[in-house]
Amino acid sequence: MPCCEIIAVGTELLLGQLTDTNTPYIAGALASRGMDVYATHALGDNRARLSEAIRAALGRSDGVITCGGLGPTIDDVTKEAICDALGLECELNDAVMQSIERIFAGSGRQMRDNNRKQADLPQGSVLLSNAHGTAPGFVAFARDGKFVAALPGVPHEMRPMLDEQLLAWLRSRFSLTSFITTRVLHTIGIAESEIDHRIGDLFASQANPKIAVLAHDFRCDVKLMAKARDAHEAAALIGPLEQDIVARLEGYVFGTDDETLESVLVGRFAEVRRTIALAESCTGGRIAARLTSVPGASAAFLGGVVAYDNAVKAETLGVPAQLLADFGAVSCEVVTAMAQGVRKRLGSDVALATTGVAGPQGGTAEKPVGLVWLALASDAGVQTQRLQLKGSRELIQSRASVTALGLLWKTFYAM
Amino acid sequence: MPCCEIIAVGTELLLGQLTDTNTPYIAGALASRGMDVYATHALGDNRARLSEAIRAALGRSDGVITCGGLGPTIDDVTKEAICDALGLECELNDAVMQSIERIFAGSGRQMRDNNRKQADLPQGSVLLSNAHGTAPGFVAFARDGKFVAALPGVPHEMRPMLDEQLLAWLRSRFSLTSFITTRVLHTIGIAESEIDHRIGDLFASQANPKIAVLAHDFRCDVKLMAKARDAHEAAALIGPLEQDIVARLEGYVFGTDDETLESVLVGRFAEVRRTIALAESCTGGRIAARLTSVPGASAAFLGGVVAYDNAVKAETLGVPAQLLADFGAVSCEVVTAMAQGVRKRLGSDVALATTGVAGPQGGTAEKPVGLVWLALASDAGVQTQRLQLKGSRELIQSRASVTALGLLWKTFYAM
Repeated sequence: MPCCEIIAVGTELLLGQLTDTNTPYIAGALASRGMDVYATHALGDNRARLSEAIRAALGRSDGVITCGGLGPTIDDVTKEAICDALGLECELNDAVMQSIERIFAGSGRQMRDNNRKQADLPQGSVLLSNAHGTAPGFVAFARDGKFVAALPGVPHEMRPMLDEQLLAWLRSRFSLTSFITTRVLHTIGIAESEIDHRIGDLFASQANPKIAVLAHDFRCDVKLMAKARDAHEAAALIGPLEQDIVARLEGYVFGTDDETLESVLVGRFAEVRRTIALAESCTGGRIAARLTSVPGASAAFLGGVVAYDNAVKAETLGVPAQLLADFGAVSCEVVTAMAQGVRKRLGSDVALATTGVAGPQGGTAEKPVGLVWLALASDAGVQTQRLQLKGSRELIQSRASVTALGLLWKTFYAM
Repeated sequence: MPCCEIIAVGTELLLGQLTDTNTPYIAGALASRGMDVYATHALGDNRARLSEAIRAALGRSDGVITCGGLGPTIDDVTKEAICDALGLECELNDAVMQSIERIFAGSGRQMRDNNRKQADLPQGSVLLSNAHGTAPGFVAFARDGKFVAALPGVPHEMRPMLDEQLLAWLRSRFSLTSFITTRVLHTIGIAESEIDHRIGDLFASQANPKIAVLAHDFRCDVKLMAKARDAHEAAALIGPLEQDIVARLEGYVFGTDDETLESVLVGRFAEVRRTIALAESCTGGRIAARLTSVPGASAAFLGGVVAYDNAVKAETLGVPAQLLADFGAVSCEVVTAMAQGVRKRLGSDVALATTGVAGPQGGTAEKPVGLVWLALASDAGVQTQRLQLKGSRELIQSRASVTALGLLWKTFYAM
């Protein structure tokens, strides 16, 4: 099995100022393709030390993947360190220069010498183009054929470059043939221990696919990992087991793999041509942000009102002032009126409303921090739900949003 | 300055199944105490490879801190690898044995041979006792006096052992008297290369504090790191440099350290008792979510309308149907009417509006994906801004949100 090492570059990593999420991402991608990782390292922006680390890694492994230190500033030295380690010079890459010039022409910003420096690549290297930034990646080569691949450190630039370019290059270079196929079943509204109870016997009896249960905040995933030579073999391994698990977890599995609660909801509502509106107080726009993260959300989502101030609840949503005075903004009565009000104003089929005490201040004995009311209004009437959530302000806001979307899914997934 | 290396141990780290939070924790603690970290590494549970990595690190640095692989199971080999690297044998430590026996007596579980193995420590090592588990840590020594400290991998066992025992040992062993104080200046609206151009000369001329520029998405941080014996000396080192940099970046530094664009805005508006309302189309609630992430946001933020559907723009925000028909929803005219409409409806001092093509579908030659219009309405009238953003739907939505908050800050920070 071919093996490589990963070197993350950046002095901030050695100061503990940043948790490195690039290395596990790259390691996971390599593992799933059948490429062994001998070790991973982090080094500072120090040309001599970095070059020495690359040389040492090439003594043990078939190649090195660096991540970070490709930017235009003087402390970015990864490219120079790779050249030092491999005994190569840099040369101007015309394609990269043109692409950087295009980016600057498009943005109206002035191009400087340090931007031009980014168009230099080690002699004889393979370009990994950067669709999301100015720093190109590349694969450079030692005289004995070992490789050093350089990826940028910004995750949204690094990930597509790895997924779309470097993995294909590695697959072809090392003739990688077996890989791990993963199938993830997303559940909502069921505890990890209950999942364990319902499917625990399968854990022991299954070697391939392996099964794992991963608890997220207020959601659990069941992960099936099959080792196979091709997609057909992987599907044959995963299919029957997936069917069995979905049947045992009926009414809780809302989607698979890249699907999210919001993508499933938008898809389902668009399919049956029904529309959603929102009235958010304590969730402050988070539910709207989730729904509008889905491409084509406009087919199902009309819009919403972030009714933070009580005057907005009264005037824009038509919540009677008397209700606000009698029961307070965080109450079953007000959340009901918010859902009905936004449904009427926006003319949606369904409306979801939230109100609560997100904290850290503002709690009382009667209405403590973490108290949240949800309401769901439709032709069938209004249903409400009272939550008592734990955690920081951020967690309470996020947990209220997930639970509200879960209520919407639970109520309408079978429509 | 004494320096060491950190080695995290665990095959799951090389498979990308776990994000290593121990290494940044240890690195941050060492950095702030004035101990340099040369490099960090992760290796699998492999005795020969681990021992080789320890030997190599001792060739470069004054010591090594390992983390993980001290448990009782057969795949825990860190102690053996350390003994191999240092040429030491293990010997029974009576204090550890008694403590393990106490833990088992207390729990009623049966003690096994592999638990007894945990009471063996390398000859001549200093014990780091484990108040939260059975695996003790230790500091072992090479013949030349260099050290290898072993910490457990479970974070709630590792952290107190580091904080309460190992740091004190290091401080005394290396006579550490200085620590590092960090000051972060947050900027918006200025490119990394432009910051480099304006303050680049300070990078070279400054050794203490060190300066680093960190680019985030559409924002940059300038970080000052001062090495000093106490807080007073740190402040004296950072103060003048910070003033100089803030002056050179006038109009771009919006906050420091833990402050965010939204916390600064909420604070400033609350202070002068002015209010904000939002009309969000393409940003879909993201700006509201940011503002409401700040505790006490209600002092400045009234609420907003997520006007996703055109009917919501027309009916709830009062955008004239004729404008929507003539210019389309993504236009200077409509974004202006949205800002004016929400300002009037919610009665706010200031209103911010967004409309755009977030993609990936829905772009045209005239209005491509990434085209976003911003408007800011106040007593002074309406100012608009046209953006052409790049990236995925998620990035366009997030970049539009940051830029909109930046516009709000730019316009009102001096009020």
